[in-house]
Amino acid sequence: MPDQESNADLNVLSEDPLCAGVFLPNLDVPISPTEGHFIRSHFSAPQINSSDWSLPVTGEINNALNLSYDDLLKMPSHEVVSLMECAGNSRSTMQPPAEGVQWDNGAVSVSRWKGVSVRTVLEQAGLKPSATDVLFEGIDSGTEPHSGGKLNYAMSVPMEKLLNEDTLLAYEMNGETLPKDHGFPIRLLVPGWYGMASVKWLDKITVLDHPNGGFHEMDYRIYPATDGKNDAEVQRVTSLKVKSLISTPAKGSVLAPGSYTIKGVAWSGDGHITEVEVSTDDDRSWLEAKLEAPQGNYSWQHFEIDWEANNLGHSLLRCRATDSAGNVQPMFATWNFRGYQVNSIHSVPITVRKS
Amino acid sequence: MPDQESNADLNVLSEDPLCAGVFLPNLDVPISPTEGHFIRSHFSAPQINSSDWSLPVTGEINNALNLSYDDLLKMPSHEVVSLMECAGNSRSTMQPPAEGVQWDNGAVSVSRWKGVSVRTVLEQAGLKPSATDVLFEGIDSGTEPHSGGKLNYAMSVPMEKLLNEDTLLAYEMNGETLPKDHGFPIRLLVPGWYGMASVKWLDKITVLDHPNGGFHEMDYRIYPATDGKNDAEVQRVTSLKVKSLISTPAKGSVLAPGSYTIKGVAWSGDGHITEVEVSTDDDRSWLEAKLEAPQGNYSWQHFEIDWEANNLGHSLLRCRATDSAGNVQPMFATWNFRGYQVNSIHSVPITVRKS
Repeated sequence: MPDQESNADLNVLSEDPLCAGVFLPNLDVPISPTEGHFIRSHFSAPQINSSDWSLPVTGEINNALNLSYDDLLKMPSHEVVSLMECAGNSRSTMQPPAEGVQWDNGAVSVSRWKGVSVRTVLEQAGLKPSATDVLFEGIDSGTEPHSGGKLNYAMSVPMEKLLNEDTLLAYEMNGETLPKDHGFPIRLLVPGWYGMASVKWLDKITVLDHPNGGFHEMDYRIYPATDGKNDAEVQRVTSLKVKSLISTPAKGSVLAPGSYTIKGVAWSGDGHITEVEVSTDDDRSWLEAKLEAPQGNYSWQHFEIDWEANNLGHSLLRCRATDSAGNVQPMFATWNFRGYQVNSIHSVPITVRKS
Repeated sequence: MPDQESNADLNVLSEDPLCAGVFLPNLDVPISPTEGHFIRSHFSAPQINSSDWSLPVTGEINNALNLSYDDLLKMPSHEVVSLMECAGNSRSTMQPPAEGVQWDNGAVSVSRWKGVSVRTVLEQAGLKPSATDVLFEGIDSGTEPHSGGKLNYAMSVPMEKLLNEDTLLAYEMNGETLPKDHGFPIRLLVPGWYGMASVKWLDKITVLDHPNGGFHEMDYRIYPATDGKNDAEVQRVTSLKVKSLISTPAKGSVLAPGSYTIKGVAWSGDGHITEVEVSTDDDRSWLEAKLEAPQGNYSWQHFEIDWEANNLGHSLLRCRATDSAGNVQPMFATWNFRGYQVNSIHSVPITVRKS
């Protein structure tokens, strides 16, 4: 098993279970260094010896499997560069606030993932016509607020997403064995969806004829405020919302008057980014930033724009992304009970002061 | 000296210096109990023996004074019921957040204050024609972030506000000797202004021919985001902005379907409150609440409205006050560098669930 990575490059919000975010200036890379990839664990990271471990696949299939770590390494491999964002990222910026890890904006990273397509395994197992969803259960367990008892982390994913070859049983991050805090020996990787679906420390796979439900699957839902007329319609958290973040300058920076480049990243789970605008004058005007071409189907796109910081005082820098489906970030995200999918416009206060 | 009050009824954000706010359900009283009045100290509360203490009055006056505690108790007294709100109240709800005590909404209370009108003392001292402002210095001292060294808490107030008989050198709260954490033996009380002007633990009074400036006076200013065209215009924090808070139900309440009364308080430093509206359907519709008549010039006004909570799920309750000058609370307060005067509409998430 690889050593636990150092967390020196991360902003640790919780020690155990480990929750640690990226410092935003570190977003300015094509792929996050493994030790700088955000970590969101629900329970303590289990110590797993890969030679003692195997992955049973059962349920609505014709051939029950029990795959060893070596079995998986020997199967045809697939790589995908994918952004991962925690569904609760930016929760602390929602008003009124919600219970949960008070992420600022740092629960987002990009990695090069390698593993076996889930589809490859499902083909080997032979899906029955009744198969609609697959339950992925982790070895990690514990209690959650309101869970009413001990449970394992678990989430089912609909078949459509699993039959995409980019959905992986991943064993490598950035060319190295998956680190413990990222799910060693094997984790699920569901590109384009929020991170809650990418179950770590996989223990078993069960093919179902229905969505599983269960605590985590019911918890990762958008519970909106009611309109007072009907009971609220609750939807599952799935695809990443269009979003962008300013990486440079960092919030709170004190700059001498002069020329600067404002940089950042943008992404969407609903196509690629077509435009990023930047405002340096408190939402009065917006200018189009230079935008990197899409880097595959699941990564972020960097943007930058030059800025003459000539006015003394405090400025709010903001960025606003539009995706190819026409979605635009809102100034304030719609409130929901659990504080998920917060994609409001990122606002970065900085100060211009003569030194 | 009176005993230090118990803080059992307050939400302590900082132990030393003591900063402690009110739990909002406790706003539902005409006058806050003394032990339930919010506390905002910049430095450790000094231990003062009133028999060793005196208050020199110097500067642009004809007769220098040095008033003992007994001198002040023997002078003509004046009482005023006044709301006090910390300028940083609700800071934690501003986006992006600002440095400073992360008040939720509890830094507001009402007390019956008794003392000597500042005007009475200034008349005894004999103002010179040059007198425009008065500096009030506290005995409390320490360092502030960015203060660059040790200093005493101090603030000057313009003469116009001081010649109003309701501005007091206060020695009683709610009929009892001023408690240590509220400024024993004597504090300034500036009704209608944010609390930063009501200097505690008074050490000396100096009549000036100009505003004093100094660290705290410069710090309690609205530093806006620039418009990118001009250097930002900076204004001093003075009068209370129109604001309202829901006291009942408390945020996070889980209610069975049924009939409830939503209650709260509203106030303004720019006249009295003329209307409070309440929304229970996520800002889609607003209903006028029953509003208490103004209680003097400086207190809050209670409001209430009946609510049939028949829809299951999560609701955002909101209240919005209008004052007699026509000011209305905004959905989101304008950002400023120090996070002062945040008077955005209070939003209270609650859940309706069958038991």
